[in-house]
Amino acid sequence: MPLFKRCVAELIGTFWLVFGGCGSAVLAASFAGQMGDTPVNMGIGFVGVALAFGLTVLTMAYAIGHISGCHLNPAVSAGLVAGGRFPMKDFVPYAVAQVVGGLVGATVLYFIASGKAGFTLDDGFASNGYGEHSPGQYSLAACFLAEVVLTYMFLLIILGATDRRAPAGFAPIAIGLGLTLIHLVGIPVTNLSVNPARSTGTAVFVQGWALTQLWLFWVAPLVGAVFAGWTYKCCLEAEPTEG
Amino acid sequence: MPLFKRCVAELIGTFWLVFGGCGSAVLAASFAGQMGDTPVNMGIGFVGVALAFGLTVLTMAYAIGHISGCHLNPAVSAGLVAGGRFPMKDFVPYAVAQVVGGLVGATVLYFIASGKAGFTLDDGFASNGYGEHSPGQYSLAACFLAEVVLTYMFLLIILGATDRRAPAGFAPIAIGLGLTLIHLVGIPVTNLSVNPARSTGTAVFVQGWALTQLWLFWVAPLVGAVFAGWTYKCCLEAEPTEG
Amino acid sequence: MPLFKRCVAELIGTFWLVFGGCGSAVLAASFAGQMGDTPVNMGIGFVGVALAFGLTVLTMAYAIGHISGCHLNPAVSAGLVAGGRFPMKDFVPYAVAQVVGGLVGATVLYFIASGKAGFTLDDGFASNGYGEHSPGQYSLAACFLAEVVLTYMFLLIILGATDRRAPAGFAPIAIGLGLTLIHLVGIPVTNLSVNPARSTGTAVFVQGWALTQLWLFWVAPLVGAVFAGWTYKCCLEAEPTEG
Amino acid sequence: MPLFKRCVAELIGTFWLVFGGCGSAVLAASFAGQMGDTPVNMGIGFVGVALAFGLTVLTMAYAIGHISGCHLNPAVSAGLVAGGRFPMKDFVPYAVAQVVGGLVGATVLYFIASGKAGFTLDDGFASNGYGEHSPGQYSLAACFLAEVVLTYMFLLIILGATDRRAPAGFAPIAIGLGLTLIHLVGIPVTNLSVNPARSTGTAVFVQGWALTQLWLFWVAPLVGAVFAGWTYKCCLEAEPTEG
Repeated sequence: MPLFKRCVAELIGTFWLVFGGCGSAVLAASFAGQMGDTPVNMGIGFVGVALAFGLTVLTMAYAIGHISGCHLNPAVSAGLVAGGRFPMKDFVPYAVAQVVGGLVGATVLYFIASGKAGFTLDDGFASNGYGEHSPGQYSLAACFLAEVVLTYMFLLIILGATDRRAPAGFAPIAIGLGLTLIHLVGIPVTNLSVNPARSTGTAVFVQGWALTQLWLFWVAPLVGAVFAGWTYKCCLEAEPTEG
Repeated sequence: MPLFKRCVAELIGTFWLVFGGCGSAVLAASFAGQMGDTPVNMGIGFVGVALAFGLTVLTMAYAIGHISGCHLNPAVSAGLVAGGRFPMKDFVPYAVAQVVGGLVGATVLYFIASGKAGFTLDDGFASNGYGEHSPGQYSLAACFLAEVVLTYMFLLIILGATDRRAPAGFAPIAIGLGLTLIHLVGIPVTNLSVNPARSTGTAVFVQGWALTQLWLFWVAPLVGAVFAGWTYKCCLEAEPTEG
Repeated sequence: MPLFKRCVAELIGTFWLVFGGCGSAVLAASFAGQMGDTPVNMGIGFVGVALAFGLTVLTMAYAIGHISGCHLNPAVSAGLVAGGRFPMKDFVPYAVAQVVGGLVGATVLYFIASGKAGFTLDDGFASNGYGEHSPGQYSLAACFLAEVVLTYMFLLIILGATDRRAPAGFAPIAIGLGLTLIHLVGIPVTNLSVNPARSTGTAVFVQGWALTQLWLFWVAPLVGAVFAGWTYKCCLEAEPTEG
Repeated sequence: MPLFKRCVAELIGTFWLVFGGCGSAVLAASFAGQMGDTPVNMGIGFVGVALAFGLTVLTMAYAIGHISGCHLNPAVSAGLVAGGRFPMKDFVPYAVAQVVGGLVGATVLYFIASGKAGFTLDDGFASNGYGEHSPGQYSLAACFLAEVVLTYMFLLIILGATDRRAPAGFAPIAIGLGLTLIHLVGIPVTNLSVNPARSTGTAVFVQGWALTQLWLFWVAPLVGAVFAGWTYKCCLEAEPTEG
């Protein structure tokens, strides 16, 4: 496919990741219901948000995987470069398309979310943060470590499940549900990024602390992803002479 | 397959979408339990309803996909026409079968639901609405935008996952879980339609506001679906000369 | 495979359906946690029970589908006979193995559950019931209708997903998650059976009302299943001359 | 693949099982939210933890299944030896890699978890226990029986889904979601192990009772797994002369 079509696919896919994933968090995580006189949450909670993020990737991997490879994430593109699966020269166009897609996703979400009285960006707009802006007030070091480790494992899943020795056609399930798993673990820590494009999309709306802390959600995922690319290439890849 | 058999399949499948999806909402979203003296919800909440809607499509796509293509939704049929995947001449028979299936689904659900003392259609019967009838009181504009965007992405998932370049056999998983994802995002906004047949089925029972607002749940999904068909055809389809 | 091995597989599989499905309900649906001073349910609720039942079938269909076909349910065996997919002469041995497996599953569950102080069969032991023994007090007619319709659709999913025109290998996903969907809809109505062997397993322990009401959970599933077999054969099956 | 690469894969995979599975429990099972003035749990509860454990195995089975077979569990390796699917001479290297991986997983989790003020190992650190250390205070006998039966069924799923007669490529879905199912049933009983490496990883941090009770989470899973290997080989395996 020509690079232009592939970048359109990445833009649409990352739009979906941010609109669908962050949208589930902003619009649906919490929804007031009642049992008798007691308020209860009818909304989807962290389980639903984790499922939503993963399904954005699962659905797009089947829909556009054959077009662009469905990275939707500069860290994924970087890890695939490090692992020898993606040409360095395409990294910047992909990353630009992903960031633009994330911004469009956050913009559309903003228009819908602000159609409800009382909506405010002060609730965080699903932005990622550390320290006092971590959902569970986890320290900077814990947040950094979590993002590195979770991105590292995300890339190992991607590299392994798309290995030519892995069963064909199943990678989107492994990768999508892998992102669900990563959110099941990490939402309380950083609100979970592992994806600089996703973090940038929401931070641009929240401004202030979200932009100040944005560096971590570029550095940590990229570090984890590149290490995973190297690990796979040196320790897990089949020798050319193997089956 | 002859058109008649295909329409029987669409009718049964849309019956299942409305009975199973709306049934999960009406019968099971909320169910009173107790922890000590505190009431808790043992029911399935929005996560369970989102899962149920998606699984109606996943199960039917494997069960009748080889018979009718398993659209279960006039917007899907329209989007496939726009994308050049479905003949215009079959659109009306399919849409009629889908609407009839939705009405039968709502009817059977009504009989079961009314077998519980205290059941009332005033609780909404899982109907779709905007403004004061939006579950979270989202504005008309926000509801319209949400239905357009979510149907647009639903159709891109369908068109991509059934592309001849996508891995064979997995489309029902992508499409079904895609509908789950769409519900995880949108239930608080419009109670989530993206499907005129589903909205019509329940609105006919609720009457009043549900019928008055029904236009949006025909117009917005159809607009989103047709745009998606055009997008895929012009920007994402492989050239005839490509692999 | 010889009939004996196939019956061993059916026995083990139905053991798993009852032990895993009813076990999730009895042991884990409700588990007291706390948020500050407020009791909350950390347990799996109806969503988790629905998932558990479906996954017993999904896992067994991959594990023993190639051995016995993995019916795990006399209604499934009967519907496959009606649809021309299973020989009548094997129905009784299969049904016996299924009922025995269900009884063993309930027995092992009983031993584990009674290892907790305060356990009592008076909580229902996940038995199926109607009227005053329906979880949501649904009428006999509503319960009968629900069991017929849900078993009917369960069998259509099975017949369609195992049709030679459906994609190979995916049927266990469609069928297992189909059972999850059916539970998402129907637990509040009858505690959901669609399976006489499952109902018998628990009723034998609860005695009294559970045995008195057991007839419905044989009759309704069998009626729904046989109708589905006929529907598929006459309306949805491909003609011998079709592709 | 050389044994060294396979052991690296087992180490990484078991790291992921413990970090991801126990991490979801420690970091995310419980997270305080509010509906009006009423505290609610926004965290993932037992359903989310069950999903997380299963998805660690599903993702790794696609990522490293082609490298090491993805056992991640000494009981699985032992059951495969008993079933004639894995050479006895590789058991010890695999088990060592798995235990080391589990320890590393628990260590990384400890560093992240302790980045939150108020974290304490006294909350159990997702350790397995029986009697007064069972989450639901189940007796030793009930806990032993549950671990034996659930490991037995886990191995039957593994042996069946990887049988040459089962559809290729789907085993990771059956096995991963099988582990989810097992957790849906058993978390209240023992906090669910079925895996000595997972139990060892957390017990080493908690010390005291967790180490004292650790024997059960080696003995019961190994007993269940070996019986399952024998069952499959003698009762469910195809004869050499069968198709």
